[in-house]
Amino acid sequence: MTGASFGSDNHAGAHPDVIAAIAAANPGWATAYGDDEVTAQAVRHFRRHFGQHAEVFPVFNGTGANVVSLGALVRSYEAVLCSEGAHINVDECGAPEKLLGAKLVDIPTPDGKLTVPLVEPAVRGIGDQHHVQAKVLSLTESTELGTVYTVDELRALSDWAHGHGLVVHVDGARFCNAAAALGLGLGDLASGAGIDILSFGGTKNGAIGAEAVVVLSSGISDVLPFVRKQSAQLASKMRYVSAQFVALLEDDLWLRNAQHANAMAARLASALDGAPGVRITQPVQVNAVFAVLEPAVTAALQERHMFYVWDEGTGEVRWMTSWATTEADVDAFAADVRATAG
Amino acid sequence: MTGASFGSDNHAGAHPDVIAAIAAANPGWATAYGDDEVTAQAVRHFRRHFGQHAEVFPVFNGTGANVVSLGALVRSYEAVLCSEGAHINVDECGAPEKLLGAKLVDIPTPDGKLTVPLVEPAVRGIGDQHHVQAKVLSLTESTELGTVYTVDELRALSDWAHGHGLVVHVDGARFCNAAAALGLGLGDLASGAGIDILSFGGTKNGAIGAEAVVVLSSGISDVLPFVRKQSAQLASKMRYVSAQFVALLEDDLWLRNAQHANAMAARLASALDGAPGVRITQPVQVNAVFAVLEPAVTAALQERHMFYVWDEGTGEVRWMTSWATTEADVDAFAADVRATAG
Amino acid sequence: MTGASFGSDNHAGAHPDVIAAIAAANPGWATAYGDDEVTAQAVRHFRRHFGQHAEVFPVFNGTGANVVSLGALVRSYEAVLCSEGAHINVDECGAPEKLLGAKLVDIPTPDGKLTVPLVEPAVRGIGDQHHVQAKVLSLTESTELGTVYTVDELRALSDWAHGHGLVVHVDGARFCNAAAALGLGLGDLASGAGIDILSFGGTKNGAIGAEAVVVLSSGISDVLPFVRKQSAQLASKMRYVSAQFVALLEDDLWLRNAQHANAMAARLASALDGAPGVRITQPVQVNAVFAVLEPAVTAALQERHMFYVWDEGTGEVRWMTSWATTEADVDAFAADVRATAG
Amino acid sequence: MTGASFGSDNHAGAHPDVIAAIAAANPGWATAYGDDEVTAQAVRHFRRHFGQHAEVFPVFNGTGANVVSLGALVRSYEAVLCSEGAHINVDECGAPEKLLGAKLVDIPTPDGKLTVPLVEPAVRGIGDQHHVQAKVLSLTESTELGTVYTVDELRALSDWAHGHGLVVHVDGARFCNAAAALGLGLGDLASGAGIDILSFGGTKNGAIGAEAVVVLSSGISDVLPFVRKQSAQLASKMRYVSAQFVALLEDDLWLRNAQHANAMAARLASALDGAPGVRITQPVQVNAVFAVLEPAVTAALQERHMFYVWDEGTGEVRWMTSWATTEADVDAFAADVRATAG
Repeated sequence: MTGASFGSDNHAGAHPDVIAAIAAANPGWATAYGDDEVTAQAVRHFRRHFGQHAEVFPVFNGTGANVVSLGALVRSYEAVLCSEGAHINVDECGAPEKLLGAKLVDIPTPDGKLTVPLVEPAVRGIGDQHHVQAKVLSLTESTELGTVYTVDELRALSDWAHGHGLVVHVDGARFCNAAAALGLGLGDLASGAGIDILSFGGTKNGAIGAEAVVVLSSGISDVLPFVRKQSAQLASKMRYVSAQFVALLEDDLWLRNAQHANAMAARLASALDGAPGVRITQPVQVNAVFAVLEPAVTAALQERHMFYVWDEGTGEVRWMTSWATTEADVDAFAADVRATAG
Repeated sequence: MTGASFGSDNHAGAHPDVIAAIAAANPGWATAYGDDEVTAQAVRHFRRHFGQHAEVFPVFNGTGANVVSLGALVRSYEAVLCSEGAHINVDECGAPEKLLGAKLVDIPTPDGKLTVPLVEPAVRGIGDQHHVQAKVLSLTESTELGTVYTVDELRALSDWAHGHGLVVHVDGARFCNAAAALGLGLGDLASGAGIDILSFGGTKNGAIGAEAVVVLSSGISDVLPFVRKQSAQLASKMRYVSAQFVALLEDDLWLRNAQHANAMAARLASALDGAPGVRITQPVQVNAVFAVLEPAVTAALQERHMFYVWDEGTGEVRWMTSWATTEADVDAFAADVRATAG
Repeated sequence: MTGASFGSDNHAGAHPDVIAAIAAANPGWATAYGDDEVTAQAVRHFRRHFGQHAEVFPVFNGTGANVVSLGALVRSYEAVLCSEGAHINVDECGAPEKLLGAKLVDIPTPDGKLTVPLVEPAVRGIGDQHHVQAKVLSLTESTELGTVYTVDELRALSDWAHGHGLVVHVDGARFCNAAAALGLGLGDLASGAGIDILSFGGTKNGAIGAEAVVVLSSGISDVLPFVRKQSAQLASKMRYVSAQFVALLEDDLWLRNAQHANAMAARLASALDGAPGVRITQPVQVNAVFAVLEPAVTAALQERHMFYVWDEGTGEVRWMTSWATTEADVDAFAADVRATAG
Repeated sequence: MTGASFGSDNHAGAHPDVIAAIAAANPGWATAYGDDEVTAQAVRHFRRHFGQHAEVFPVFNGTGANVVSLGALVRSYEAVLCSEGAHINVDECGAPEKLLGAKLVDIPTPDGKLTVPLVEPAVRGIGDQHHVQAKVLSLTESTELGTVYTVDELRALSDWAHGHGLVVHVDGARFCNAAAALGLGLGDLASGAGIDILSFGGTKNGAIGAEAVVVLSSGISDVLPFVRKQSAQLASKMRYVSAQFVALLEDDLWLRNAQHANAMAARLASALDGAPGVRITQPVQVNAVFAVLEPAVTAALQERHMFYVWDEGTGEVRWMTSWATTEADVDAFAADVRATAG
């Protein structure tokens, strides 16, 4: 691929510090499956951020983090409530249904964000053997539409969930972007929000491939090791996954990467503000810009730039920025969009 | 961990060339999920070894490779025949049963190697709705007991299997060690053996974490992308998995690593030949030495060295060597074993 | 329970002819699991109705018929399209997700009936490994809301489905009611509609418990015996299930029962036409009447009669009639509804 | 089929009292799904036998009773220990693996009966994430080989199991035969044996099709309704299943049927005692006789009588008797066996 990709934050490489951390973890022998010093170090960093009670289970990828998290929480007759556009609902090829044997109850939402009034009707038939039993509320922070729940919004949802006997899972593939956008520490966001279990993403934040299940409430983590292994998400040479978290979490690399990615999206949105033929459709709160273009404009731009159409029906496209996107990348792209769409 | 580990070939680090390949793959942008140039390069190397017809699907780990391979082959009422000690049967926390919903029919074997007479009785009740229908013969090459099937032995099994409508899967977490031991190319071993689908292992051969499903027969690969994704084994930034294969396969690193690991086990067995209190229990054909020691000897040695008891009942221990084990490591360890056991 | 139930057609007993057929099947010995003369006789009757190519697999209940039908059709990464209110989606406690490991893609519909424009957007991401692959269109005839697809409506859906590589499943728990309402034979409805596989219901039509998977298209039935057994839906003393189908299908008992049940619902709707405080919400086409009442009216009526609230939010109730409902039952109930609501 | 079948106790019809009970349950309306008076009556009878603490969940068939029982007990990474020849292991087409997603650890046994020394080695790797975690000990009483555990034998197993944190499930498809053979009441056998959950069989004891999950220990039954429904084992018109249990349990029909079936097997064994060419291979303790015949003798007999070969390799056949087998049936069959084998 030549030129910056606006297709996905997964198209960026890894931050050089992550590569360096992997190389640094390499010499010598280490016990497999997480019983190694690098993993211990990563766990210490996680706990510094999320609190000493946090239990940390590195896994390979985001789908893995989600199915392991949810697999620890539900029996097959229980259900997971999520937004209609949730990654677990539409972008994981049915992995949750496969691994859990359980139903996802998906709820339409205009901006990717659930609210208590939206989810309330989905809790029904509790105690009735004919119906799946709502057990988990799964939220995405930041959302698949580039929006961010405030702490208060999350807290309202988690209070409601806990009041109804539900557990709160957050798909945090871009949790760092959300925390950066909100100006909060990772743990402040997690605890303020009342999250019970978090799929914490490193990959999109500058890792080569590192996600973790972070358990924040008691009574969940005992089954995690078995669920992780049975879900084929237990790394043998775990030190190389853990080293990436060390790089991201030991200083503020996670934050710098997230802030930069967010800033690049804001810069792109700003550069396109008022551009003829470009209608931005969602608040630009993290590292994504959603916009509607004429199909011919999209086609022309895609000959020169990498990005995806989000909705064939409406002509909506998604532009993602990352830790690796430069101001020059944004400016050149924005100029081309303006020129092509105008 | 101080000192060389004889506990597992997973305790070794990665070969420096692997780390270098990861670093080399890092600059710039790349499409996610396998549609990138590094992955294309890895596939070319796989095909150079296994043939142009090979279809290659990188995954994260060995359990992942196995469940994706088997998941592409069986419906839940079909069964997988394997040895009693097969990794899929005893070391994957039930991942195959979970992911397939199917039964593993396990068959006792003295040396980890199945034979036609051993497997034949397991194919029964075909066409009878009360019984699971044998569909896959899963073999491990080299085996969990450090033994190696010859090409002829594998061919006899695969001919029999194909004659009975079974598909042949090989768990090749240590396929490189087997090929090296047999003095064969990877493709010569695979095609000579009549393998339909292979879990090819890079991790134990010097990678940080890289396995691949290699499909060698037609009619299997169409479903693979979906099975892989639904099994949470599709890497987003796949270039970093693929780069490891490039390092191992582009020259003969895979072979040098395997030959070295095998040689170190042979050296260890040789050094212990005739040692009082040490009874080697399996032919030493790849990178493992199995031996029976007095429990007190084992306990004393474990205070100074990392290795595992294989069978509490018999006092059998397993010593693994790797690409990173040095002659000095072996000699020092062997001397200590002799001194302690004698 | 005293007095007729309008709660469900499952609240009725069995038609005396069904009981007699069970008793008649009792004397003597019979091979188990379907290899008996009564089952052979039932199959002959099914084929007389549905055609000689029909393959028939008796099962225990409606959920069983549905999961066996769908289990024969999908792999876990494939998806089933259905209406939001489909029995498989909301009333089977997640049995389809559990047994298939697959996603149901549910589609809102005002009257329980899908249309091509409604289902078309649900077929997306075909060939994309990130998305479940639409494989089955599951319709309910007659629907959960007491409405009936015409043959043309079904044919439009099945033509569309087949054109997109989908298989058409019909949940026919009340297929007899639909055929009776349309004035069609069972086979005329099934073949006219282009149904590939049918969950055929006997229980609500006057059996004690008898459902069958009826396979109408080729290439499906080979796996059925195994899927049925593995789904725990294979009766050992199958003659007693089959005898019920003999009773229903050998003459026109299925039709008389269905016509009567439908007529009773029509009579009820007619008796309530224009009744103050009673708003009938769906066309009364088979044996159900849906109506909105004041909650206090509902509560008062439920003290004297058995029926269920369908939607707590809107106050909608469901009144079901059956083969056993009498004109006197209807007239008395209607009078009480009028008196209470007025 | 003409003449008595010695093929299976499933080949017998239902006892006339069972048919009568079904007919008696028919008139009038009844709430579906178990909330009816006949089911309440059946539960009262179960509790009279098994104790007031027993929770009873009628299901359709034996496989259903087993998968619902086990499904209530295990998570997918947990394992069920059973004998190699257990019905759940070899005769249910993999239904347990499918429904549980879990591994059955099967243990060879000469007579179908497990012992503590046999099962002890199967509990290993507890707490180790790589291994399935033994959770249930599943026994069959009477066994698939027509043998019977004494109360003391069962108690030794259940004491051991409870001491290791395992739950004891009994597949009691022929529990009545066992109780009759031991001269014990159903509850005396169950409580004496320390059973936690029982698949109680009515079908082979003279029903048309009626099994029940009987929960005898606390902490299990809460999930049962959901597991039963999600496993497609919840009968809508449950009164007809329950009526069969009323017939069997209200007086001593269960006992008379079982005693008679057992006596017929004893009579057959006795009549063949010392017969040339007939070697009885298992103690005849309930309603089965296992014997080795010459293949030609088996073939000749099968032309005139219905029975099955149990083991093609050894020439072992299985002869089952039932409540419906008469002394004349036995005597005629025994005479033919003697004449043909002699």
